[in-house]
Amino acid sequence: MAFTIGIDYGTNSVRALVVRCSNGEELGTAVVDYPSGNKGVLLDPGDHHLARQNPADYLLGLEKSVTAALAQATQKKDFSAAQVIGIGVDTTGSSPIPVNEKNIPLALDPKWAKNLAAQCWLWKDHTSHREAAEITRIAAEHRPHYLAKCGQTYSSEWFWSKIWHCLNVAPDVFAAAYSWVELADYMPAVLAGVADPRQVKRGVCAAGHKALYAPDWNGLPDEEFLAKLDPKLAPLRTRLYEKAHDATVAAGTLCAEWAKKLGLPEGIPIAIGEFDVHYGAIGSGIQPGVLVKAIGTSTCDCAIVSADKKVADIPGICGIVKGAILPGYYGIEAGQSAVGDIFNWFVEVVCQGDAKLHAELTREAAAMKPGQSGLLALDWNNGNRTILVDPRLTGLLLGQTLHTSRAEIYRALIEATAFGARAIIERLEEYGVSIRQIVCCGGIAEKNALLMQIYADITGRVMQVAGSSQACALGSAVSAAVLAGKEKGGHASFSEAQAKMTRIKDVSYTPNATNHDVYNQIYALYRELHDAFGGVTASANLGQVMKKLIKIQEDQKKKN
Amino acid sequence: MAFTIGIDYGTNSVRALVVRCSNGEELGTAVVDYPSGNKGVLLDPGDHHLARQNPADYLLGLEKSVTAALAQATQKKDFSAAQVIGIGVDTTGSSPIPVNEKNIPLALDPKWAKNLAAQCWLWKDHTSHREAAEITRIAAEHRPHYLAKCGQTYSSEWFWSKIWHCLNVAPDVFAAAYSWVELADYMPAVLAGVADPRQVKRGVCAAGHKALYAPDWNGLPDEEFLAKLDPKLAPLRTRLYEKAHDATVAAGTLCAEWAKKLGLPEGIPIAIGEFDVHYGAIGSGIQPGVLVKAIGTSTCDCAIVSADKKVADIPGICGIVKGAILPGYYGIEAGQSAVGDIFNWFVEVVCQGDAKLHAELTREAAAMKPGQSGLLALDWNNGNRTILVDPRLTGLLLGQTLHTSRAEIYRALIEATAFGARAIIERLEEYGVSIRQIVCCGGIAEKNALLMQIYADITGRVMQVAGSSQACALGSAVSAAVLAGKEKGGHASFSEAQAKMTRIKDVSYTPNATNHDVYNQIYALYRELHDAFGGVTASANLGQVMKKLIKIQEDQKKKN
Repeated sequence: MAFTIGIDYGTNSVRALVVRCSNGEELGTAVVDYPSGNKGVLLDPGDHHLARQNPADYLLGLEKSVTAALAQATQKKDFSAAQVIGIGVDTTGSSPIPVNEKNIPLALDPKWAKNLAAQCWLWKDHTSHREAAEITRIAAEHRPHYLAKCGQTYSSEWFWSKIWHCLNVAPDVFAAAYSWVELADYMPAVLAGVADPRQVKRGVCAAGHKALYAPDWNGLPDEEFLAKLDPKLAPLRTRLYEKAHDATVAAGTLCAEWAKKLGLPEGIPIAIGEFDVHYGAIGSGIQPGVLVKAIGTSTCDCAIVSADKKVADIPGICGIVKGAILPGYYGIEAGQSAVGDIFNWFVEVVCQGDAKLHAELTREAAAMKPGQSGLLALDWNNGNRTILVDPRLTGLLLGQTLHTSRAEIYRALIEATAFGARAIIERLEEYGVSIRQIVCCGGIAEKNALLMQIYADITGRVMQVAGSSQACALGSAVSAAVLAGKEKGGHASFSEAQAKMTRIKDVSYTPNATNHDVYNQIYALYRELHDAFGGVTASANLGQVMKKLIKIQEDQKKKN
Repeated sequence: MAFTIGIDYGTNSVRALVVRCSNGEELGTAVVDYPSGNKGVLLDPGDHHLARQNPADYLLGLEKSVTAALAQATQKKDFSAAQVIGIGVDTTGSSPIPVNEKNIPLALDPKWAKNLAAQCWLWKDHTSHREAAEITRIAAEHRPHYLAKCGQTYSSEWFWSKIWHCLNVAPDVFAAAYSWVELADYMPAVLAGVADPRQVKRGVCAAGHKALYAPDWNGLPDEEFLAKLDPKLAPLRTRLYEKAHDATVAAGTLCAEWAKKLGLPEGIPIAIGEFDVHYGAIGSGIQPGVLVKAIGTSTCDCAIVSADKKVADIPGICGIVKGAILPGYYGIEAGQSAVGDIFNWFVEVVCQGDAKLHAELTREAAAMKPGQSGLLALDWNNGNRTILVDPRLTGLLLGQTLHTSRAEIYRALIEATAFGARAIIERLEEYGVSIRQIVCCGGIAEKNALLMQIYADITGRVMQVAGSSQACALGSAVSAAVLAGKEKGGHASFSEAQAKMTRIKDVSYTPNATNHDVYNQIYALYRELHDAFGGVTASANLGQVMKKLIKIQEDQKKKN
């Protein structure tokens, strides 16, 4: 008997999962909420773009979640912690942490503990939008090949935007930081006891998708380019990394200190860190032709294409990175900046309701037919990640009368996110990435049958659901099982491990042809709005409306 | 001492007002809610376009409101009912009533009492939108001069659309109706005891604004044109009227029956009936250069231009009718289909709140600066009456994020109606109707200081408020005082009567220059949306989006 542990760092909590390698059975699991901030997120009341996290929460959560999951697994008769053969970790990202020379986050030093800039810069922090726009502009002029791999637009959510913003707004923190480490690389390094940022094994997932890393141009962006952003950024390059790795390479082996804390065998391999959705894609059974959609507060879509094939640059797709998900494949990542978050906003902020109201509106909305409300919405309340890659877009609701009910609005918001999902699928196929199967994972995919049916009706595709409710942690455990290898009781390859350890749920959602026809008409109207307000249709002259409103808003706020 | 009575038929209730002619003092007032339907409106759960009223409510309300107002006035020491020298009536419109040969509403006959088509077709009934579009189309082809006076588009709220729709959906009612009388003409005829529809003195206000009446083409639309709509409509023309009158002509004198019921002197003159907002404009002191805005659930704007001047046809303005408001002037009417109704929809339907929430959101919204929310809305939840004249337009809200509060939305909706108001002012001035003063009346103008300040800031104009809270009833009383004449204790002219009987409140709202500058930027964006979705900007290709959604909605509803 052999087992691996997957550890999944989400936005509000960390989850550990103990998995049997032979069949994917989940023997123990435990979730630990981050104690700091608002549900684990440090906020700034004066700037709603800001979202940080306390690195101490990660360490606390690591010990508590793994020991609790092991305690649960130990109650199964054939399990013992001594049989654990590997550990994998996935996290949110891009979530870079400023660290000192010993790879210790600045925030753990009392001197910096209260400084928001010294914390982990959480993926959804949007404070760096000006820097992102500048990086896009400068790269377009001087390094167009950098942009080609990230959909032509560098995002405010990503590594360099955040570090540069830190330099601009908190130069003392920037100066104190010896290096910056992605959370996805930091946690495996902690388990491996790596005490030098230059020794941290960096995953190509974070590097390639967020840090403009590519073997084609010898790793990270060159110093000359970084100096064009700010001369102070250039020297940082040598204190980061030269090479990033796919999941064939171990992040290290479990160090004595953490082996003791967790009650696990010292020296077992630790998988390279990947982003949650990437390991989630593995845990959901990703393979060529399969699109994995992780549907939660936001959405992330993953596809892979054999590395033997030539893959075109796809405009508006967040990233195409070799080895980012599975070794031997290009990993393709797309996503929607807000999905569940939009429904939550409407129910909690606008209607001042709770889970009960979600259920009530869902029930009412389910009784409606497509198009019956006359409403149409754009799903941009948190900007548009794919295919417009523009954080300065905002939401839109159209068609309301004096009789429009809130259930109708609720349904229109669900439909808006489904139209956004369809735009992504169409863009992928347009550029040769064929999608023959869609597997969804995440809480919404499991619980919201109305949303799943609407997604099927709008996309015209069958929507399947991943077998595990903890697809990300399971994917991390799969990666650990492959790394440990067949002789230790793991697996010889990812395809073997996925076949044994992952599955699809029996329930699936099949498109209703009549509904699909109606939605085709409405989707055409969605695209009219999408293209006009997204700036695709230049003649519509509306592409600047949302941005100009944000500019006025910012100017007005400055007057305070 | 001389007094007149003004009677104001609103959407939910009727109000009577006893006024002293020498100084406009209001000695007695009483309001009677209509007992039938939902707040006086008969609805059809299956068709939210339908809005009818029970004519019996009007008769009941007439007796109860006048006698109660007189009872109150009688407590003043120098008043007696014998000193009342005239009565004026204003009503909503176009609100046509099918009547029999004796001028009795069909609905008062038990045979028809339960038939919705036999009731008064309330102004806001929108069931006739197909007929309205057909009238516009046929008139554009065969009688373009008909359209020139009503903003190029005939409305579903108007006389012929409603009668034709009755013919289409309730041919039995149409066949049973000897004639149709506007509520504004019906009530004075009741007081005068007129028992033949052909003897009813019709006001040029309703005739000119709603029934395509004009002396230029010899009265109502010709039979050939009506036959093009439907051959059955043509014979109705001779059972309607040949001439309509301005306020220099009396509707009649008080008949014995109603003199007894009300306790008033028999034979006193009854002013010609006008629409509420038109007499309201008089009660608010309208004169050339003054725009009177009646702000309530919807908005109506009135201006006048000397009949000696040449007035251009103004595209998108509901009507320009000689004598419609004041004799000797062109009356110009514009309006917004929903104002207070939009705020009520948001608070009551979306937020499920009440007056307390209105107050709370107003307080929060008042603390915000222009543009601070990043939101922008179109005020079309009930279509657009002016300047697009299109009931098949719908609402739009743009700029929402995951942090948008409901107070921000509330403020954006107020701003949207103010932008709509500005579009009307600009259109009038563009066509030579100069506006040097704006006087507002109605409940919202009196109570909602936030809205009034936003209107001032957005239009860049001082917003004044009419002195009377009952401007419509006061205007009816003014008209009665002029009709009664100076020798009876009334007045020699409208200008004399307005000078003595009407006033402006001391409070007024002056534009804040800084806010006006910001709003100028936002108004430019409003116009981008307005013109794109209103179909003005053909290249934007968005002018059909709302209409196509309504079409899909209607098709889907038919499938039930």
